[in-house]
Amino acid sequence: MKVRVDVMLKQGVLDPQGEAVKSALGALGFTGVEGVRQGKVIELELAEGATEADVKAMCEKLLANTVIESYAIHM
Amino acid sequence: MKVRVDVMLKQGVLDPQGEAVKSALGALGFTGVEGVRQGKVIELELAEGATEADVKAMCEKLLANTVIESYAIHM
Repeated sequence: MKVRVDVMLKQGVLDPQGEAVKSALGALGFTGVEGVRQGKVIELELAEGATEADVKAMCEKLLANTVIESYAIHM
Repeated sequence: MKVRVDVMLKQGVLDPQGEAVKSALGALGFTGVEGVRQGKVIELELAEGATEADVKAMCEKLLANTVIESYAIHM
């Protein structure tokens, strides 16, 4: 089974990658870009029977730094 | 308006980050992880009126390296 986990920096945490993308888009002539946040997407291929609790444990222990990042699980 | 762009390495392109996550999950005792692919998610806050064509141009010019990466736009 395929599971997708999105990991984003929490609101209020400075996102230098996103800021760099925003300024690069501006330099390339794209107007109207008001904000950019960049995060990670992790696609897991799991054996059948894996539960959302398993994936949550993976996020808490490895995939996300929960001090500064939030995650969303899509099963 | 908010637009999400997912950027993933194409099938067949080696994904060392994903492999590292997979082996780390195994080392932490998570069994049944058959594959991991890691990509980027970019959340754009655009002025009203931006079209999918605009976002596609951003992807082609900056957000994705289309030689090795594919992207998906979610408006």
